[in-house]
Amino acid sequence: MAAHAIDELKATGTGFVIERYTVPGVKDLPVACKRLIEERGCDIVMALGMPGAEEIDKMCAHEASTGLIQVQLMTNTHIVEVFVHIDEASDERELAWLAEGRTREHAVNAYDLLFRPERLTKAAGTGQRQGFPDVGPTEAAGHAGGH
Amino acid sequence: MAAHAIDELKATGTGFVIERYTVPGVKDLPVACKRLIEERGCDIVMALGMPGAEEIDKMCAHEASTGLIQVQLMTNTHIVEVFVHIDEASDERELAWLAEGRTREHAVNAYDLLFRPERLTKAAGTGQRQGFPDVGPTEAAGHAGGH
Amino acid sequence: MAAHAIDELKATGTGFVIERYTVPGVKDLPVACKRLIEERGCDIVMALGMPGAEEIDKMCAHEASTGLIQVQLMTNTHIVEVFVHIDEASDERELAWLAEGRTREHAVNAYDLLFRPERLTKAAGTGQRQGFPDVGPTEAAGHAGGH
Amino acid sequence: MAAHAIDELKATGTGFVIERYTVPGVKDLPVACKRLIEERGCDIVMALGMPGAEEIDKMCAHEASTGLIQVQLMTNTHIVEVFVHIDEASDERELAWLAEGRTREHAVNAYDLLFRPERLTKAAGTGQRQGFPDVGPTEAAGHAGGH
Amino acid sequence: MAAHAIDELKATGTGFVIERYTVPGVKDLPVACKRLIEERGCDIVMALGMPGAEEIDKMCAHEASTGLIQVQLMTNTHIVEVFVHIDEASDERELAWLAEGRTREHAVNAYDLLFRPERLTKAAGTGQRQGFPDVGPTEAAGHAGGH
Repeated sequence: MAAHAIDELKATGTGFVIERYTVPGVKDLPVACKRLIEERGCDIVMALGMPGAEEIDKMCAHEASTGLIQVQLMTNTHIVEVFVHIDEASDERELAWLAEGRTREHAVNAYDLLFRPERLTKAAGTGQRQGFPDVGPTEAAGHAGGH
Repeated sequence: MAAHAIDELKATGTGFVIERYTVPGVKDLPVACKRLIEERGCDIVMALGMPGAEEIDKMCAHEASTGLIQVQLMTNTHIVEVFVHIDEASDERELAWLAEGRTREHAVNAYDLLFRPERLTKAAGTGQRQGFPDVGPTEAAGHAGGH
Repeated sequence: MAAHAIDELKATGTGFVIERYTVPGVKDLPVACKRLIEERGCDIVMALGMPGAEEIDKMCAHEASTGLIQVQLMTNTHIVEVFVHIDEASDERELAWLAEGRTREHAVNAYDLLFRPERLTKAAGTGQRQGFPDVGPTEAAGHAGGH
Repeated sequence: MAAHAIDELKATGTGFVIERYTVPGVKDLPVACKRLIEERGCDIVMALGMPGAEEIDKMCAHEASTGLIQVQLMTNTHIVEVFVHIDEASDERELAWLAEGRTREHAVNAYDLLFRPERLTKAAGTGQRQGFPDVGPTEAAGHAGGH
Repeated sequence: MAAHAIDELKATGTGFVIERYTVPGVKDLPVACKRLIEERGCDIVMALGMPGAEEIDKMCAHEASTGLIQVQLMTNTHIVEVFVHIDEASDERELAWLAEGRTREHAVNAYDLLFRPERLTKAAGTGQRQGFPDVGPTEAAGHAGGH
């Protein structure tokens, strides 16, 4: 997955340097991401993982995701989580295809969040993203101004 | 959903400026909301999302909601979460109708929280809000005063 | 529920001032409670809500409860949560009866926590409280003293 | 349960003073424990509770446990959680027996954590503790020293 | 499990000192790990535990895991969690075999995270690790540099 992410990022644009940090399991990802942000000065992180199909693996992925959100709130920095659950595919081949596709799409998302956020806004609500057809957040800011 | 929110807010009152921040998925919402509050000075945020129907989507929505509450506690600022789960509706048309209705109602809630909180108190307990017929909190403050 | 809480508090004692803060749904309660404590100087808060009967409502209540505990830990202040789940009662009438009863009992609990904690200790373990027949915590403090 | 805890602690050793703090339900335990540690200077806390048998009670216990762990991390202080779930026993008598036994065992654990941690290490992995036959943590410290 | 961890660590390399901290149950692990890091200066921690087979044990393990991730984020330090669930094995013998194997593999992981992280990167995506065939995180850093 890391190779696909790096390949897609390089194909998408320039102006960035890539740092890698490999960990044994998905639950080790949150602190690794925090260190990438705080100790290596990263502006955005992609967290790549492939949780297993068992109930316990689902729980590990949930714990990791919760931690990844916490890191984002502690650092005001986006972490693009790319988890491909082994049971999302019916065989090895489909799994590889899914992992590559999702990783590449999210690599572009990571690039957009950092360099061209207006591109995400344009696509909002069109449901073109895989697995997440969510509309992004809007925001109602009440400045005391003319009120 | 963002378009409906903006439209309803403008129809409800004035005195505010709207900022948009689009993200790839619901799990990216918490940090986006935090940045809207801390970096763009927003006084309230609406977090709009449409989680999917699968078990994993429910978990993502739960993780996002947990994060959104954390952001509120870190910033002492309200975030009005508007999630419409795809399986709440039986077809595309009902989903669109539900998303618009809920977004508009919550846009008014966001406006009320910021500009006319007394309106929420008046409606408390009448169960008129969709999906959340909850009475709001009351508060028993024990000031050392005359005790 | 707020009316019953206020009524019971006034019937129980004096020496306090009541502040109200109404929000659209239970997930908006945590930040409202935090603001009551930090911005309006409240010494204790009652969080009143009536979550729905659906699975998603249970999850919302869980997220709200988790947030309410976090607020307590951030402020060292008690928040007495009074949630009445709609499916705890078989009809409207029973629901109203349950909501009133639980609210009144918890109003006395809030009063006791603030003004007469010894009363809670006396009742501990007798299982007289509704829904929570729990013994309160005891505490084994090891002061370095004469050891 | 509090009475058994106090009795066992006194039978186990000396050199400590016991503080009690009673709360209405298990979800009120986390902030009570935090205040015992921060406001009354306690070095360790036992959190005693008897959650009910319903699904909602399990959730309350989970929320309380999560909060108790948070308090420990905020204060670097152990909290020994002693929860006896009502449905762990088949009748009142067995429940009382279980509550007393678990409370007494954990009172010794609390004493050991504070005054004789080497005793816990000796027992590690022998599975003699009720409900928790877990080996404790070990620790691989990589000091830059002679490497 | 602690004995296997220590044995494997010593067989893997040198340059470290090992500290042990034994606790009664898995939920006591997070604060113990935090104290090892903050009070005894540890650079990495292995958290060893053997949760039971009941539903409540699964919940305890989940709460412990969530706490362990929090500690990592509070300290920017890795904690290698090694939990062996009793129901992962069909008998005592298989359980002992599994516990030893997993502990030894994770001891090497802990060593690698601290002393030779490049070894983890090389193995990423080959799925050779037990229970966690996850690819590690990669990272897309957008430095303002030449952009």
